[in-house]
Amino acid sequence: MSAMNRQVRLAARPVGLPKRSDWSFTEEAIPALKQGEILVKVTHLSLDPAMRGWMNEGKSYIRPVDIGEVMRAGGAGEVAASMNPDFAVGDKVAGNFGVQQYAVSDAKGVRKVDTRFVPLSTYLGVLGMPGMTAYFGLLDIGKPKAGETVVVSGAAGAVGAAVGQIAKIKGCRVVGIAGGAQKCKYLVDELGFDAAIDYKAGDVKAGLKTHCPAGIDVYFDNVGGEILEAALARINLHARIVICGAISQYNNTTPPRGPANYLSLLVNRASMTGMVVFDYAARYGEGARDMAQWIKEGKLKAKEDVVTGGIDAFPETLLKLFKGENFGKLVLAL
Amino acid sequence: MSAMNRQVRLAARPVGLPKRSDWSFTEEAIPALKQGEILVKVTHLSLDPAMRGWMNEGKSYIRPVDIGEVMRAGGAGEVAASMNPDFAVGDKVAGNFGVQQYAVSDAKGVRKVDTRFVPLSTYLGVLGMPGMTAYFGLLDIGKPKAGETVVVSGAAGAVGAAVGQIAKIKGCRVVGIAGGAQKCKYLVDELGFDAAIDYKAGDVKAGLKTHCPAGIDVYFDNVGGEILEAALARINLHARIVICGAISQYNNTTPPRGPANYLSLLVNRASMTGMVVFDYAARYGEGARDMAQWIKEGKLKAKEDVVTGGIDAFPETLLKLFKGENFGKLVLAL
Repeated sequence: MSAMNRQVRLAARPVGLPKRSDWSFTEEAIPALKQGEILVKVTHLSLDPAMRGWMNEGKSYIRPVDIGEVMRAGGAGEVAASMNPDFAVGDKVAGNFGVQQYAVSDAKGVRKVDTRFVPLSTYLGVLGMPGMTAYFGLLDIGKPKAGETVVVSGAAGAVGAAVGQIAKIKGCRVVGIAGGAQKCKYLVDELGFDAAIDYKAGDVKAGLKTHCPAGIDVYFDNVGGEILEAALARINLHARIVICGAISQYNNTTPPRGPANYLSLLVNRASMTGMVVFDYAARYGEGARDMAQWIKEGKLKAKEDVVTGGIDAFPETLLKLFKGENFGKLVLAL
Repeated sequence: MSAMNRQVRLAARPVGLPKRSDWSFTEEAIPALKQGEILVKVTHLSLDPAMRGWMNEGKSYIRPVDIGEVMRAGGAGEVAASMNPDFAVGDKVAGNFGVQQYAVSDAKGVRKVDTRFVPLSTYLGVLGMPGMTAYFGLLDIGKPKAGETVVVSGAAGAVGAAVGQIAKIKGCRVVGIAGGAQKCKYLVDELGFDAAIDYKAGDVKAGLKTHCPAGIDVYFDNVGGEILEAALARINLHARIVICGAISQYNNTTPPRGPANYLSLLVNRASMTGMVVFDYAARYGEGARDMAQWIKEGKLKAKEDVVTGGIDAFPETLLKLFKGENFGKLVLAL
């Protein structure tokens, strides 16, 4: 127990994109475990767009990370010591471990995972929060019916790629919006999307017109901004818009941009509904069962963008999300 | 049948507030009725915010009024001649008669109304489209539960006043937003709202904070703009926002303003849903039955702002809506 634990803490509330100086690096000795606790050697950290929101002050769906606190992060790793009868040394686990090399946990919210068929990092992606977000956001809020057109933004990201594939499994026409020809090719060729629109290459509105000849029935939004407006302009009667995120707006230093054409909701008697995955915690088992089955059947593929820079690379690696540089679920290997 | 029929036609698509020059006045002889038709002498015209949208070009929930066409309007009046066995001369009727003194109608969508207990103009208000809009928008989309807080904007208007009273009947705390001390006093003293906020007098955000100590569960929006943003800032988990209109935006000459804080929907897992009353046509009977019963019981009051200027006063009377000058359902008596 004399090993040192290197940690990344929030040093300042970022203005715009988080800078290296918004973080501090600390090392402290790993404390002795108390009854019921486990020590996890964290091997993989989940880097997610939502982290940007957790750095801000103010009321949100989860309390902000305090200044000086270890940055909140999902992670996966191996039990290195246990004072909890449910966990043995060597167990592979996933949980909310924070941006640090070792986590002492009371084991609440920590789950043992099976790495015989999928790599550990998959439990941060399609079998983790992003996968559950896609599953419940699409199926519970979006309620796609076979034959309908589903559009998803951030389509090459962890959530978006799963949304599109689940929609295909449900018999929908699926159009993804992503940045870059390589990502768009991947969506169509590897994941089976019906079409992909490269927002960096051209006009998303025109792309939606071309690829959604029957309009949009479900729009799953991860990005906000102009792309949300482009989708609103093409929705059908009784369309459902799932608001999962708005990565285009997270680093704004000016007030966020609201969808100027939101009255399309009125014209089309459509809805726009926010979702937060934590609300579905009691049903994660249901989602994980379906998702694992689809992976086994080859219907659901997961791509992870695993960066091997170690914990000190956290600040720069996180920025890949906001620059659209990640390709698949962004994971930092420690 | 040699009487002349004076009509108001759309002469130009307005930019901003409709000007008198956007209208033309015509007179034509009333044609002979064909089999199945009725002639209605229009005595009351319904003036509604939605009319502004009908003057614009482009796809909406209903086709635009064409240039040169008699302006679309709900109306009420008396059957002056009938070639339809279901209607007799002297019957009081309501329907889509247009801005004109006489309407020749195939009787589709025309309903006979009972004026023994309420004046004819009430069938353009609380027992007409505005009442049905309030009834189905609040109950079907807003789904208020007893004890919840319901906020309605445009609260002294035809729809808003009904929304607030129905919400009171359903056991909710009701806060109205309206312009001017007189309207606010009316909402509280006459209609039984728990509180009213005068948007002309001060900060709506502060007013909502004061009068919605437990947050907002249902927000029924008739106005859009800053007031929608103020409401979004105070919504509770799983709140329902009904988008019924956006009168603050209808005469914009710049692009409409989208709600900059729409991500409050995400944080609060809330929804924003558009509604158009015509979708409920098959259920109007249900709404009218409840509303008439509540009127009889004295639980639902209707205020009409009947302007007696005749048909030539239509252009200026309509503007009262957009200047917030009407107090209750705006009706033009012919």
